[in-house]
Amino acid sequence: MKIGIVQQNYHIGNFENNTQKIIQAINEAKTNGAELVVFCELTVCGYPPRDFLEFNDFIEKSNAAIEEICKHTYGIGVLVGAPQKNPVLEGKDLFNAAWFLYEGKVQQVVHKTLLPTYDVFDENRYFEPAYDWHTIQFKGRKLAVTICEDIWNLGDNPLYRICPMDKLMPENPDIMINLSASPFDYTHVDDRLAIVKANVLKYQLPMIYCNCVGSQTEIVFDGGSVAFDGMGNLHTQLPLFKEATAYVTVNTDGTFAGEIYKKESELPDVELVPATLDATLNIEQIYNALVLGIKDYFSKMNFKQAIIASSGGIDSAVTLALAVAALGKENVRAVLMPSHFSTGHSVSDAVELSKNLDNEYDILPIKNIYDAFMSELSPVFKDLPFSVAEENIQSRTRGNLVMAIANKFNYILLNTSNKSELATGYGTLYGDMAGGLGVLGDCYKLQVFELAKYINREREIIPVNIITKPPSAELRPGQKDSDSLPDYSVLDAVLYQYIELRKGPAEIKGMGFDAALVDRVLRMVNMNEYKRNQFCPIIRVSPKAFGIGRRMPIVGKYLS
Amino acid sequence: MKIGIVQQNYHIGNFENNTQKIIQAINEAKTNGAELVVFCELTVCGYPPRDFLEFNDFIEKSNAAIEEICKHTYGIGVLVGAPQKNPVLEGKDLFNAAWFLYEGKVQQVVHKTLLPTYDVFDENRYFEPAYDWHTIQFKGRKLAVTICEDIWNLGDNPLYRICPMDKLMPENPDIMINLSASPFDYTHVDDRLAIVKANVLKYQLPMIYCNCVGSQTEIVFDGGSVAFDGMGNLHTQLPLFKEATAYVTVNTDGTFAGEIYKKESELPDVELVPATLDATLNIEQIYNALVLGIKDYFSKMNFKQAIIASSGGIDSAVTLALAVAALGKENVRAVLMPSHFSTGHSVSDAVELSKNLDNEYDILPIKNIYDAFMSELSPVFKDLPFSVAEENIQSRTRGNLVMAIANKFNYILLNTSNKSELATGYGTLYGDMAGGLGVLGDCYKLQVFELAKYINREREIIPVNIITKPPSAELRPGQKDSDSLPDYSVLDAVLYQYIELRKGPAEIKGMGFDAALVDRVLRMVNMNEYKRNQFCPIIRVSPKAFGIGRRMPIVGKYLS
Repeated sequence: MKIGIVQQNYHIGNFENNTQKIIQAINEAKTNGAELVVFCELTVCGYPPRDFLEFNDFIEKSNAAIEEICKHTYGIGVLVGAPQKNPVLEGKDLFNAAWFLYEGKVQQVVHKTLLPTYDVFDENRYFEPAYDWHTIQFKGRKLAVTICEDIWNLGDNPLYRICPMDKLMPENPDIMINLSASPFDYTHVDDRLAIVKANVLKYQLPMIYCNCVGSQTEIVFDGGSVAFDGMGNLHTQLPLFKEATAYVTVNTDGTFAGEIYKKESELPDVELVPATLDATLNIEQIYNALVLGIKDYFSKMNFKQAIIASSGGIDSAVTLALAVAALGKENVRAVLMPSHFSTGHSVSDAVELSKNLDNEYDILPIKNIYDAFMSELSPVFKDLPFSVAEENIQSRTRGNLVMAIANKFNYILLNTSNKSELATGYGTLYGDMAGGLGVLGDCYKLQVFELAKYINREREIIPVNIITKPPSAELRPGQKDSDSLPDYSVLDAVLYQYIELRKGPAEIKGMGFDAALVDRVLRMVNMNEYKRNQFCPIIRVSPKAFGIGRRMPIVGKYLS
Repeated sequence: MKIGIVQQNYHIGNFENNTQKIIQAINEAKTNGAELVVFCELTVCGYPPRDFLEFNDFIEKSNAAIEEICKHTYGIGVLVGAPQKNPVLEGKDLFNAAWFLYEGKVQQVVHKTLLPTYDVFDENRYFEPAYDWHTIQFKGRKLAVTICEDIWNLGDNPLYRICPMDKLMPENPDIMINLSASPFDYTHVDDRLAIVKANVLKYQLPMIYCNCVGSQTEIVFDGGSVAFDGMGNLHTQLPLFKEATAYVTVNTDGTFAGEIYKKESELPDVELVPATLDATLNIEQIYNALVLGIKDYFSKMNFKQAIIASSGGIDSAVTLALAVAALGKENVRAVLMPSHFSTGHSVSDAVELSKNLDNEYDILPIKNIYDAFMSELSPVFKDLPFSVAEENIQSRTRGNLVMAIANKFNYILLNTSNKSELATGYGTLYGDMAGGLGVLGDCYKLQVFELAKYINREREIIPVNIITKPPSAELRPGQKDSDSLPDYSVLDAVLYQYIELRKGPAEIKGMGFDAALVDRVLRMVNMNEYKRNQFCPIIRVSPKAFGIGRRMPIVGKYLS
């Protein structure tokens, strides 16, 4: 049986475009002689549709799209993902379903059993889990169709009390097919290969695994769809971060026609999140995820141009380089806004960067505006000494200036804050925390340095001085980040234990970190939930990003 | 059996204070001769603890608190809520549990079955549902103990496929006891009475229902704990929005000692959310919820003083009056920041309001700062005509000024945006959308008018001119809200159908609203998710508030 694996980039709720893409892929598959074509999870509406699922109208539009797709299934079997109404009164109103379409009709619908409800996932919010399980019979083969999480319940600490493939095995299936919407993080590409291999070895069946690609606000789907034969060998792996289609032919004995791409023995076992932060890990993947994250945010929001507050520091430099890679230099504008505390090299470094990238830039000093603020505030501030209030006025003046240009000329402000700053609250709300999309908000400072090196891998794009000088917010004379924060090599290591690995204070101190420092860092993280709560979406590249996947009480008193 | 019902206000993660409160109440109950004392859901750690639950350290602290409480249970039975580790490998790591403590020991632990995972609730994210059910035997009585949602599965559209009380009935319980953390909204007080009554009538058993009180960031818990006899009569109802304790004596036949407070026939049946917006509905409850929301946000964050941008409009006037009611006039400061487009009465109305409330205020005109911005931007803006960019500069200059004073003197900025504005995106990010807590963000403009009337119920606090003049942002000469938005009576009615009732465009048009207007309004709502995503927490008073309880894709293309 020749099977097409279609790895596409959908737009949430954009039924018209999604349907058109799906139909085009079906027609191509027919031309290529495929008998079955497999799409990803929630193909028709895009993943994650979130509370759009609570609108009957949305479900009706999805059903209408399925009807439209059906018309193109004469002579070819099609597996697409879409929500399905739950006909039973009790339980949630929907199933997360895989629809099998053939000869113009919905032939069979199977439901997802394991509904991820952790990190960025909220599937129990919308869906009732499957409670009966059947294979799909097609052209003399029995297809064991599962959806994403359904195949992930094999580890040492299973989240679920059920294993869907175990439920399907009594029907003696011939091929496993999984429709996924599995997001990227820097550990997940290997994990995914490992879990598919583990399923294949456990059930001794070939598997077709189809993942979507593309970014949906903060979540980047990286594709990497695969086809394994029944012996655990990898035959086909689709590229990361790109749309692609592959065709495989599955023989009746579970072998595949064609060569083995990677033998079972060359493939990873299930990886855990690393026990310590390795800032160099998969930096190229992170770079590609960030570029796709920017690109898709703009295209799906129908935006064209980005603006960036370019300070001469490494965060804005890396953000600018990523934006140019994603949107093209003609669509990126930098604004340099030196204050009286900015060092001379800040402006010259930022200018050099924009010259290297060949993007438009303006220099707008903030002194006169700052003075106007201080003059207006003098009856209130009187002779009180310079404090964080004056620092914030500078940062917010910059925010206001760059937003003014953005509003005037239809730019979207890209935010440059990194994960270390966001974690510790080292930033000004409505100032340097402003922006529509957080490009580096899931990268620790140490990772930002690695990204800078990666960007400079072929030629010096980011001036070396930007990489080597000590980080500073330049809001006070001679200010350095290290005045307020521990050294990044220590800070990032502690943050990683607390945020990614959810270790408590005693465990982190037990690793040898200074006790007072650990308490101080954890306190900073917890006290600054209120700031992060107002932050823009952050492109997620780690297993635990700030935002929708990390939900902390703001008024909580824990460790603060 | 004499039972104490303890309705307290906890602080999430503040184990020390919560434990102290619980022990004090146990000791009081002993003094009052109670044999059993009942607390609310997740008493020990506060509700909702969110992702704090993912930290082993947090669970260990909760377990330690339970041990501490145990020491005070000699001679008195105690039912408190706390998470419990799931001893089974498969499934989520925790149960949401009710702990029965007596004679210094944990005697029995029962688990929550129905885990709300909708709106503001995420319980499936953390908890494994109960899968066996037993009553607790105590002093010859069998107690059927359930937790919050467990008793809500009686309606016409049940969310669940199981009913926990049905599982307990075979053991022939004598008394139902429910530990709740049930949040306020303007429909929920009646709903709650109705659901308890429905349970009592179905199972013919008395019920003790203990709810917590107090606000946790955006969610206000309103208390209103009750005790029903087995005939469906209400004997005791604790006050709304206040800590309180009641003692009831349940006879062996299910009757109560003492008078009936409300007969079964006087109590409501289950109410649905009203089919159309009634802006006058339970306005006193909304007022009290907002006051408690402000008060608890400040006390739990250890803040004292609030600052408000007072424009002379109705939203800031109502916010100011609520802040004074919550924090005291000595802790509230108003800042009036007229622009060259502000009308003369704006300043005089705002001054009169602050005189009526007797709170401190400053007048800081923004013209000079605005001019400094425009002068700095002139090489970029050149001779382009006045646009939304210039409007936003004014709004953000105000944001910057008021935040500067807040930062200098440790005030927290209260945001004054209403739900109609937030829904349509009629506000400036980092300008009038700035602030730490959204006071009116869950009140439609029509409800803000009702709140103003309520605030003026005894004497004119809000000057009548503020209530009667046409709403305006005053960012352009002669600007009115009605230039950009439909009339609020129509706008709010449409928004209510879309947001609270999740009706689609066809359904709303079918109610007689103008088709083009409906499309325009729904488009505005969906296009502005990106703005609301950066908004502060909003005190929730409706069944569907913006924020954590309404999760929409930002890049979604649905209806936009």
